[in-house]
Amino acid sequence: MMKIDGNCDSGCPVAAAATVFDGKWTSLILRDLMSGTKRYSELQRSLTGISPRMLAARLTMLEEKGLISKTIYPTVPPKTEYTLTESGQRAEAVIMALAAFGATLARPG
Amino acid sequence: MMKIDGNCDSGCPVAAAATVFDGKWTSLILRDLMSGTKRYSELQRSLTGISPRMLAARLTMLEEKGLISKTIYPTVPPKTEYTLTESGQRAEAVIMALAAFGATLARPG
Repeated sequence: MMKIDGNCDSGCPVAAAATVFDGKWTSLILRDLMSGTKRYSELQRSLTGISPRMLAARLTMLEEKGLISKTIYPTVPPKTEYTLTESGQRAEAVIMALAAFGATLARPG
Repeated sequence: MMKIDGNCDSGCPVAAAATVFDGKWTSLILRDLMSGTKRYSELQRSLTGISPRMLAARLTMLEEKGLISKTIYPTVPPKTEYTLTESGQRAEAVIMALAAFGATLARPG
């Protein structure tokens, strides 16, 4: 079992992961893509309150980190789809842990 | 097993957890407190680059959500310590999942 303590230096895996999960939208985008490929418009509809600029920035970050892939179809207008890569699928355990933890937040005590 | 899909409405546990893990510092504070009670000065030293204002804001948020407790000792100067509550300890699974995921980020492919 991976040992985690406060003296985790700059190479700390928690710090590395926290740069991906920096802000709530990343978790919610990855959550949505866990159920399969989504179009930009589907993500925008599902993520109530996200600005187009924030959604584009998060998708670009996730793509640059190799966690999602983007496919553009030359239709009119062009259609863009996003899919979790193999690396991105490794984030599912974090999303499941967040969900289990989030469920306890509603419970008192 | 908890089903998570893109149609997770506003009561979504992932969204609830994401409001706690909103930004990298929260993960790193919880990571540090996983190894036991820490003084404010210990957290500040461990979290390279965090501003006193950000550290104070995150600690206040975590305390308000009942995830950490604060103890102030009337020494001169006063000493403040932070400890994970029972609720806070439930976040450990998220930290472990982040660590496991973070470790894969370094690996190519």
